[in-house]
Amino acid sequence: MSEASVAAEASAPFYLAVDAMGGDNAPEVVLAGLELAADRHPEAHYLLFGDEAVLRSLISRYPKIERICSIRHAPTAISMEMKPTAALRLRDSSLRMAIDAVASGEAGGVVSAGNSGALLALAKIVIKTLPGVSRPALTAVNPSARGDVVMLDLGANISCDSRNLVEFAVMGEAFAQAVLGLPAPTIGLLNVGVEEQKGDDRLRVAAEMLRESPLAGQFHGFVEGHDITAGTTDVVVTDGFTGNVALKTGEGALKLASFLLRRVFQTNVLTRLAYLLVRPGLERMREWIDPRRYNGAVLVGLNGIVVKSHGGADAEGFAAAIDVAMDAVSHGINEKIRVRLKQIASLTPAVEEEEKVALGAA
Amino acid sequence: MSEASVAAEASAPFYLAVDAMGGDNAPEVVLAGLELAADRHPEAHYLLFGDEAVLRSLISRYPKIERICSIRHAPTAISMEMKPTAALRLRDSSLRMAIDAVASGEAGGVVSAGNSGALLALAKIVIKTLPGVSRPALTAVNPSARGDVVMLDLGANISCDSRNLVEFAVMGEAFAQAVLGLPAPTIGLLNVGVEEQKGDDRLRVAAEMLRESPLAGQFHGFVEGHDITAGTTDVVVTDGFTGNVALKTGEGALKLASFLLRRVFQTNVLTRLAYLLVRPGLERMREWIDPRRYNGAVLVGLNGIVVKSHGGADAEGFAAAIDVAMDAVSHGINEKIRVRLKQIASLTPAVEEEEKVALGAA
Repeated sequence: MSEASVAAEASAPFYLAVDAMGGDNAPEVVLAGLELAADRHPEAHYLLFGDEAVLRSLISRYPKIERICSIRHAPTAISMEMKPTAALRLRDSSLRMAIDAVASGEAGGVVSAGNSGALLALAKIVIKTLPGVSRPALTAVNPSARGDVVMLDLGANISCDSRNLVEFAVMGEAFAQAVLGLPAPTIGLLNVGVEEQKGDDRLRVAAEMLRESPLAGQFHGFVEGHDITAGTTDVVVTDGFTGNVALKTGEGALKLASFLLRRVFQTNVLTRLAYLLVRPGLERMREWIDPRRYNGAVLVGLNGIVVKSHGGADAEGFAAAIDVAMDAVSHGINEKIRVRLKQIASLTPAVEEEEKVALGAA
Repeated sequence: MSEASVAAEASAPFYLAVDAMGGDNAPEVVLAGLELAADRHPEAHYLLFGDEAVLRSLISRYPKIERICSIRHAPTAISMEMKPTAALRLRDSSLRMAIDAVASGEAGGVVSAGNSGALLALAKIVIKTLPGVSRPALTAVNPSARGDVVMLDLGANISCDSRNLVEFAVMGEAFAQAVLGLPAPTIGLLNVGVEEQKGDDRLRVAAEMLRESPLAGQFHGFVEGHDITAGTTDVVVTDGFTGNVALKTGEGALKLASFLLRRVFQTNVLTRLAYLLVRPGLERMREWIDPRRYNGAVLVGLNGIVVKSHGGADAEGFAAAIDVAMDAVSHGINEKIRVRLKQIASLTPAVEEEEKVALGAA
């Protein structure tokens, strides 16, 4: 890439690094997804990392993005099966180079549909956590009866302590502000019941910390599994194990519903007629709960925006992941997190003492 | 109650103790539920614990159960709000007396729609765990695309170790045999991914123990949240925190689907017409996923069958809880658990050593 094109890019406001080789149908789906998202983000410029020859031969098919993409050659690519430890050693992979662009400050964020384990490991090591954040959390938007709900952690951390959960609440607030545009999102802590004594010490201490924090006004207390889809709170905070299981269980249940519904409409001629009558509504419903619409989980808490798209996402799904990345970058989610964590840091010493006591009593 | 009626009862094969005063609409719903279930269980006899005067005045309205119920006077009842510690001190409550009937061997099981915390605490203390079981687990049937799936623990134990999870697998197998009638149910361990290295040591050690146990042939390995409703395995084993969240998240997602569906059918005249055309199918679908059909969670692993009905269950829901109790009692679920645990006990020493090593390495 020439010096001149770097200078030209510098005038565009928001840069995203894109791992063009990540995902089951890369790079075609990546380019098609960028093309779909292009109109929605006139201020975006993409740094495309991957096999330069392949990308150059393909990009002419996507007229909307040809001018806003800079292709950067990456000699290798990380396969979906590669172990994170092996991926870490590969310094010239499309994923690594895209992440490096965020670490160097050239791009505000990175989007990849590639190997999740490699993305999470590389991002943590290369981009590093924000000051005050002990662990980043995988964060995404989910459907509810009342609108979109932000849930975290969806699997980056198998086990979490109280402090991690409080940080996730801060990160979830910033995410809901940036991506859902809510000025003061409400926050719930996922538990097995709403009563104060429910759950373990880890949860009770986290709830106590939130009640004494600047987030107190937005903290709704404990919520239960059914509150996620009821939309009881705008943000649902939990550890990565529970969050991952809850996310997939909810998706599975919606899949079961549509499986059963399909059977209902396929029963006979009359039910097939009924299907034709409600098709527009069903399509809106399908869209509402469409996992593609919710594609793009952000690893929040790093010095840059890191977005993981499903490996099997189609162009529309990948475009949704680009939307999330652009929302997070353009609304300065990390700045919001920094401010909140500073407010909370002043409370930390007392809180740590309390946590120690509670854990000792367990 | 007279000696004569005790003797008369002794000729009936299966006795269930019923807490007639537990639940939001007790005792009416309890009696109506028993009436609904009566035809399905000609071999059942119920010991009804509660306010004798009230029960005697009501029972004549339920002709099918009047002859198969023995009313036992319980002077007090445990409210839904009472703390388990307070409930433990109340020795003449309907719940306590019903549980005592199981502990004394007079009844094979107990069903209550009352205070969950009190039921769980009383049952554990009074009825006690089966030899070889360290902790009982709340177990219930859930809908899936392939048929019913048994899930445990649904909330009796917030945290569990590897040994607990292995015991749950044994209890889940026996439950699926008794309640679903499957000769060799398959078993999955809930995790955030299916690969062997996923999750924490607790899960990896439990999987290893199962692979080396007599359950090896039925052990499918790790399953994910979406596998529950996909019906990938007949039994899904997890800790009580994750199980409780997964259960409620799945129920919530199905509720979201039916909320959205209702909106689709209410759009206009044509969609209302469509509703009429598919109503029979929708009703079958609703029945399939109806939480009432799945009412009745069994606290498995005690010296007797303990069934918790939802507090707000209607007569049909309470009848489903009676069905589960009768299935568990009449199919000798505890005998199955005893046999399996004996087979596994021989493996225990080696396994414990392994667990220690794995935990030490964590």
